[in-house]
Formats: sequence, structure tokens, C-alpha cells
Amino acid sequence: MTSGAPIDETIVSAMRRALSLAERGPAVGDNPQVGCVLLDAAGTVVAEGWHRGAGTAHAEVDALAQVDSATGLTAVVTLEPCNHTGRTGPCAQALIDAGVARVVYALDDPNPVAGGGADRLRAAGIAVQGGVLAAEADELLRPWLTSVRLGRPFVTVKWASSLDGRAAAADGTSQWITGTAARQRVHEQRAAHDAIAVGTGTVLADDPTLTARGDGGELLPHQPIPVVFGTTPVPADARLRQHPAGLIELGHRDLDAGLQHLAERGIRRLYVEGGPTLASAFLRAGLADEVLVYLAPMLIGGPKVALDDLGATTMSEVHRLRIHRVETLGDDLLVVARPSINTSRADAGDTSPTPGGH
Amino acid sequence: MTSGAPIDETIVSAMRRALSLAERGPAVGDNPQVGCVLLDAAGTVVAEGWHRGAGTAHAEVDALAQVDSATGLTAVVTLEPCNHTGRTGPCAQALIDAGVARVVYALDDPNPVAGGGADRLRAAGIAVQGGVLAAEADELLRPWLTSVRLGRPFVTVKWASSLDGRAAAADGTSQWITGTAARQRVHEQRAAHDAIAVGTGTVLADDPTLTARGDGGELLPHQPIPVVFGTTPVPADARLRQHPAGLIELGHRDLDAGLQHLAERGIRRLYVEGGPTLASAFLRAGLADEVLVYLAPMLIGGPKVALDDLGATTMSEVHRLRIHRVETLGDDLLVVARPSINTSRADAGDTSPTPGGH
Repeated sequence: MTSGAPIDETIVSAMRRALSLAERGPAVGDNPQVGCVLLDAAGTVVAEGWHRGAGTAHAEVDALAQVDSATGLTAVVTLEPCNHTGRTGPCAQALIDAGVARVVYALDDPNPVAGGGADRLRAAGIAVQGGVLAAEADELLRPWLTSVRLGRPFVTVKWASSLDGRAAAADGTSQWITGTAARQRVHEQRAAHDAIAVGTGTVLADDPTLTARGDGGELLPHQPIPVVFGTTPVPADARLRQHPAGLIELGHRDLDAGLQHLAERGIRRLYVEGGPTLASAFLRAGLADEVLVYLAPMLIGGPKVALDDLGATTMSEVHRLRIHRVETLGDDLLVVARPSINTSRADAGDTSPTPGGH
Repeated sequence: MTSGAPIDETIVSAMRRALSLAERGPAVGDNPQVGCVLLDAAGTVVAEGWHRGAGTAHAEVDALAQVDSATGLTAVVTLEPCNHTGRTGPCAQALIDAGVARVVYALDDPNPVAGGGADRLRAAGIAVQGGVLAAEADELLRPWLTSVRLGRPFVTVKWASSLDGRAAAADGTSQWITGTAARQRVHEQRAAHDAIAVGTGTVLADDPTLTARGDGGELLPHQPIPVVFGTTPVPADARLRQHPAGLIELGHRDLDAGLQHLAERGIRRLYVEGGPTLASAFLRAGLADEVLVYLAPMLIGGPKVALDDLGATTMSEVHRLRIHRVETLGDDLLVVARPSINTSRADAGDTSPTPGGH
């Protein structure tokens, strides 16, 4: 967040391009999505790069590989260049060796192992500037950043319900509450996570496949690994045992221990699909980083609520969210919400003259 | 829906104007909102009128009163001119007497008592054309049209809930689930209905005022009359007994009989506010013409659902709706939905290759 030349439109525009390059990389896996653009002294883009997943070149190295000489160029990168030798060498050193004159990045690297790249670049006499389009980069990398900061997978809790919050009719039937477009979106979201969590109740009741499929029923290239929370063993003939990504049976319901185990296995994004007991447990524990509610245009009533007890007995204890986005998917709505930092609705400028008199 | 000159842009534009004039009239009361524009032979607007409520001039007469001579003019009206002598004379005859050359209207009058105006005009040698912007007029007059066609009040069922369908925390507290903007909208909706229905449970539990108030707490000009469904008497000291529009205590829970009674009292638009028992009863009986769901960005869980039993035990029996509109009100969402004419979601081009395998 320091020194260097003032940010001009050329740099901002190059950062936007770098962010769109970053999005080409996989949202899943251990590494973040990163993009890099190299500019010459006139501000012209001379090379572009992005990271294609663990074990492949980082974005900066990918871009540098496309020019004969990088001497005097400006590197515009969406994340602070790493200072870490893993399966690939440190990008900060690669930029120094290539002779770039200036490095502009969006976000500081939150990883204590990989951080420090900016300092290393400065020590080598390179002009460094961070914080350019930081909010946009933070939004793109929110799951990865959350995972690194908290040392556990980013947790997305998803459910589908009628407008009155029911996940099934009284007899347990639920096919189909949502329509084709919403169900296809769920498959795409599965493919954008490293793992899918379900409880044993759902496994026994529904025998789900939990694969990520295209609209023709074909398997998508990335399959999230199914994770079963609960003590009941998955039956030998369960469809989950044929899942192409394998199966993780935790053998317990301890969410913290389960997330710790998944983090150790390199899982950064977890998609919690249910049923109501597991989804409610994640929400009750404050472990939902994003909430996806598919709302179908129907009213069901009766006992089969999509969420059960959330540990809130009075209004001051409810789980407050912030609606991030509402989408129409066919006849259904998708509400994307995140935990709110607000504490009490009653503080928010309530002008009602008659408390208690509605 | 017949004869006359072809519809041109001048006529369509005049009808749009007439519709916006219609909206100036009151949405409540026994009469529909109607607007009228008079055009000369060049298509220039020479007069405008609208209906200001029962006992005042109809839109056509209001417009005619503004010209010295209407001979040869075209009248563009949002509803077929009435053929009925009530508190005012028939508009069809007024147009004939004024010497207009042509009448264009949007909707046929569905009222068996007032209909027949087009035929009367034609019999007098006037060119008549109906159906211009009929869909727009139908949307504007939907509550009134529904009330006339069904012989009962148009019923709007409203509730507020968390995203998981709860209307209160486990201890019964519910202030405030929605924010200021949503609550103000509820007051405006109350003012746009003739009556508000609640159950005795809500009266006893909350002692509501059920007035329509502005954002400064002041009473709005139109106050809907509160209607209490249920057998328990309203307590002598209940706030409802101070309601400026009076109070209707039905003394029973029979929805059909209650609606019949309200229709006989000239009530065309009923706003059902709850609680869950009464709202669920209207929905279960298929008596909700419009559903307004205020969704607050929070999760509450627990037993206090906004709707209880709706009589649906399996998916084929659920109450299907069509989402008409979604609005953001402060931090909340308002979902406006209407009964669906579709019968089964499963028929709607489901391509899932593995029924039962989600």
C-alpha cells in the first residue's frame, strides 16, 4: 500500500484485465486465482498470464515467459507476488531477475508463508505499489482469503425451499421444489467447490450422487469430493461410494474437527448441501461464510422446514445476514447472503412512534 | 374488441395518458380507477378527466365538463363507458349526448349491471373500439376486476419472515424482523385497501392498532377498517376499539361467510395481515389473490413459522405461485407473487437424467 508512481487510468485498466485473467484459473484447489499483465513504458500491454492451478506456473512467471526481455517493464498483478519456494520458485525473485522496473498489485498476500514479496522487491530497488482495485480482488478471492485467514475451508451453506421456508412436503417428497435452471446452477456451484458436505441422514434418506453434472447429465470436469458428517456408516451400496472423486467419511459430527481435517487435505471451499440438521449446525456455529437460498414460487406449509433450530431464542440472538445479490433463475429466486457485521436491527434508525403497536 | 379506425400511435399514447390519469383516483372504495382523454380530429388532447371516488363524476363526464363542445371528438377511456344509472347517470349516454364521434376503450366492463355501454354507443352511430392497452388496464384494475368477477373482496395476504420462513424468535419476540422501509411500505399498503383482516390470536397477543400511518407516525388520509376473524371477543380496552375507521367483529372464522359479509359492505380490497393461523387459512382455501412476502436478511430457526399447515401433504398438492415482482426495501426483500395457473413443476421440461439422484 505504498510508494511508487501515482495510479493512472492505464494501471487501473491493466488491473481490471489482470482480474479477468485471474478468473480464467480454477476457483478450486489450494492456490488462489491470480492474473498478471506486463506493460511497457508507454503503457501498452506486452504480455498476459494467469495461474492454472497447483503445480503450474504462477501468473507472473506465466506472463514473463512470453517476453524476450522484461527489462524496464511494469508488472500489474492481482495479488502481492509470493516470496515462497513451493512447487515453483518465488515470484518476487523471478520479477527481480527479469529486470522489471515497477510492480503494482491489488491485494497483500495474507499467507504468512508466502508473504513478504513486496519487501523483497523494494529491497531490490523496484518501485512497488499495492492496493489497486483491492476491493474487486478481495471479492474475487474472498473464499481463498477467508480460508487462508481462518485456517479452515470457506463454507457455503446452500438450501432450497418454498417461499415459506419448507424443504419438502409433509410426506417428505421434495421433487421438484426448484426448477431446471436452479438445479443446473447447483451443479455449477458444486463444480466450483473442493468438497460437498452432507449429513448421514441425507445419505440414508435420499441416496444422493453428489456429482457435478452438466445440463445433459454429463459429469463436469471438476468433481468435488463428498464429505459425510455423522456417525452412521455410509451403506455399502450407496451411490456416494461410486463418486468419481472418492469419499470422505468423517465418522463424527464435530464441525470444527471436520473442517480442520478438510483443511489438512487441502480443501479450501466446502459446499454444505444438507440436510436441515447439518445446514442448521453450520449456521448455529457461525461457520457459514456464504448462504445460498433457492426460493421456489410455492407455499408448502407443514413440518418439513429447511432449517431447524439455530440456537436463537430471542430476537437479539438471531443470525443476521446481508443480502449480497438476488438472481432470478427460471421461475425461482436465488438469494446470496453473507454474515452481517451489524448487531441489532433496532439500532438502525427506527422511527416507529409506537413500539409494540404494529 | 371491434370495429372503428385502426389503432394508431396517437390513440395508444392517449390511452397511456388515460391510464396514468386513472391512477390518480383512489385505489379503494366501490368504484374502479378510470381515466379519460378527449382528442380532436388532429389527435390533440383537448381535455382530461378521471374518477375521484364514489359519488363524484365518472372520468368521461369529468373530461366532457372541460370542453364547450365535444362534437366530433374521440374519447379514449380506460374502461368501457358504463350503461348504468347509479349515483351518476350512464356515461355512454353522456358521450352520445355530447356528440363524440368515436370511443376507444381498454377493458370491457365486467359488471353485469353496468356493462353494455359499447353496444349503446354503437346503436347511436358512434365508432367504438375496445381492447387498446387492455393488459395494462387489466393490471391496474386487477383487484377491482377480481372483486367484480368473483363477487367477493380481492384478497392480499401479507406476512414478514426471516429468509428461513420464521415470523418470530422462539420466545415470540419479532420486533423488528423487517426494517423501517419495509414497515413503511406496509402502512402504504394498508392505506390502499378497504379493510385489514386479523385473527383474534393476533389481537390478543399483540394488541395492534392496524392504522395506516406515514413515516412521521401521522394517520394517512384513508384508513382501512379492521376486520377480526374468530370467536373470541375483542377486549374492551383493545387498541383496535379506537381505530378511526371503526371495527368489524365477525364473531366467527368462516372465510367465505366473512368475505360475503365484507362484499355486502362494499369492501373490494382486503389486506390479510395475520397471524399465521389466519394467513394460512386464506392460503389453504385458495382465497389469496396476491401474496406479499417481506423477507428479512436473517435466519431465526425454531418453531415460530410464518405459515403453518396449508393442507398440502405431498408435492402435487402444494400451492404454486408465480413471482410477479421482487423489490429491495432497505435491507429487506419484498416478493410479490400470485397464484399460478401451472399445475405441476415436473411437467416443465425437466431434463434431470437421474430422478431421485440429486
